[in-house]
Amino acid sequence: MRTIRQLSIILLTALGLASVTAIVGAQDTLPSWNDGAAKKAIVTFVAEVTTKGSTNYIPPAERIATFDNDGTLWAEQPMYFQFFFGLDQVRVLAPQHPEWKNKEPFASLLRGDMKSVFAGGERALMEIMMATHAGMTTAEFEQTVKDWIATAKHPKTGRLYTEMVYQPMLELLAYLRANGFKTFIVSGGGIEFMRPWTEAVYGIPPEQVIGSSIKTKYEMRDGKPVLVRLPELNFIDDKTGKPVGINSYVGRRPIAAFGNSDGDWQMLEWTQGGAGARLMTLVHHDDAEREWAYGAQSKIGTFSDALMAQAKKSGWVVISMKNDWKVIFPFKRK
Amino acid sequence: MRTIRQLSIILLTALGLASVTAIVGAQDTLPSWNDGAAKKAIVTFVAEVTTKGSTNYIPPAERIATFDNDGTLWAEQPMYFQFFFGLDQVRVLAPQHPEWKNKEPFASLLRGDMKSVFAGGERALMEIMMATHAGMTTAEFEQTVKDWIATAKHPKTGRLYTEMVYQPMLELLAYLRANGFKTFIVSGGGIEFMRPWTEAVYGIPPEQVIGSSIKTKYEMRDGKPVLVRLPELNFIDDKTGKPVGINSYVGRRPIAAFGNSDGDWQMLEWTQGGAGARLMTLVHHDDAEREWAYGAQSKIGTFSDALMAQAKKSGWVVISMKNDWKVIFPFKRK
Repeated sequence: MRTIRQLSIILLTALGLASVTAIVGAQDTLPSWNDGAAKKAIVTFVAEVTTKGSTNYIPPAERIATFDNDGTLWAEQPMYFQFFFGLDQVRVLAPQHPEWKNKEPFASLLRGDMKSVFAGGERALMEIMMATHAGMTTAEFEQTVKDWIATAKHPKTGRLYTEMVYQPMLELLAYLRANGFKTFIVSGGGIEFMRPWTEAVYGIPPEQVIGSSIKTKYEMRDGKPVLVRLPELNFIDDKTGKPVGINSYVGRRPIAAFGNSDGDWQMLEWTQGGAGARLMTLVHHDDAEREWAYGAQSKIGTFSDALMAQAKKSGWVVISMKNDWKVIFPFKRK
Repeated sequence: MRTIRQLSIILLTALGLASVTAIVGAQDTLPSWNDGAAKKAIVTFVAEVTTKGSTNYIPPAERIATFDNDGTLWAEQPMYFQFFFGLDQVRVLAPQHPEWKNKEPFASLLRGDMKSVFAGGERALMEIMMATHAGMTTAEFEQTVKDWIATAKHPKTGRLYTEMVYQPMLELLAYLRANGFKTFIVSGGGIEFMRPWTEAVYGIPPEQVIGSSIKTKYEMRDGKPVLVRLPELNFIDDKTGKPVGINSYVGRRPIAAFGNSDGDWQMLEWTQGGAGARLMTLVHHDDAEREWAYGAQSKIGTFSDALMAQAKKSGWVVISMKNDWKVIFPFKRK
């Protein structure tokens, strides 16, 4: 439900009595952002595209903003949170799979020998993901994700995973929406892993979540229609897949895109390739004290030197978590 | 942009001062519908799901309505309009393809021998569609569709194809949206064939259009990123594909679904399979005088006897174009 404040903005805008940006000042809507180049770039861009008469004005219908999820909206260390879900589900499902006791990578995982699990590389991880993400109906999987996300805790912070979202990005999402933007997630993560909770956590409804997917099959079970999740890849929403996914799901080119790693490179490039004002930004994880510091050498959320060079060359905004954000996680707010 | 009327409704509703249905009376929002069982079923359903306190109340975020396009929102005879586009494009592209003069089905088509073209069956049609829908960038294809839809005329009526939409359905789309519904197209037609014009014609933005698709590939051309359309099927959004597509794109089950043929069967079945109030309807083409009369025997828009039996058994609303609609096409309004 819209707030009365939002409705007032809509009404006033419709009546031409005020510009949206004049009402929704950046000062009180981005309180966790330090005044610096990153915040200034964001606020300037939003003012430009929302001010009628500006040469860079863009009508609300075209104000599409896309956000990566892992490392951009929530944390991704020491590994993608969806992998923790997969590992937990192997333990939950083990009683139904006695054969796993003698089958890798499941046997090692169930013994708690994570080193051997990871020694199996990508193939072992894919086996774990397929075993825990396919074979059930979409409704069953949704319930499993809901149950897990409501209870599972991060190994380092002891917090719910949905608490490990970035407060400044929550403010940014709300700020953009208050200025007529439609906010989308465009993540390499599983689309059906995100949808059960993105609306409550980010205010992003399921139909605005794009992600990687496996195939589903329609069938009748006990006279009821179900969609069964098949152990077969459908779409990888990463790197060059991100523009493909955006085109497939949204059908418009974003005017603003937010990422944090090499996987977001083409999404930013595609965004910048359109005509008119564009905003491309990358969150840089440079705060070992309050979060994690990683980049070119990290396997999770790689931010290569080449990406940094491209950002500088193309005028992409690099957000320093250490310098641009007053607080990282909502639970650390005073 | 919302109208002041719509904004008033939103504001009043937010303030709890009035029910939406009390303000947006069906009388003046569905003027092209005769008072009959179909209109009554629609109005009753909308009143139920939008009235707070009603046992069947459904919050706005879950008010998803899906519409087939061909034969449901616009006409589909004597063949799907997208095929007319394909045939026209063969003629446009012929100078770049001298080899087509000796290659079927192109040779027959260019000679105007449509009988031989259709004798080639589905394979010939698929060859024509791939030759005219793939090989270019998404931006180039979008412009081609825009140019064609703005000028091409229907062989029987001499009207633009976008004029051959159903006035009662335009009213229904607006009525549902005024009552907080999000309206989606779920069509067997090409997603990128529909998106360039659905917003202007139906008020449905590209991100709410689901359809069949071919694969695309991201690449750089002259230093600019493009998406190239490949001659490879990606997804067929028909029959059991419709629930799959809805789940993939929307991530919620519709509470209302509108179709007109066997291709919509599973979409209606999937819609009905959810808990709570549901509305399933089928447009029946039974008006040879004002449009076309066809059904079980038609290859285009087949409405089989089995579907009619299922509709009766399951309480799906069958809309008689002849009896339920005062006018079919907008250009016939007095």
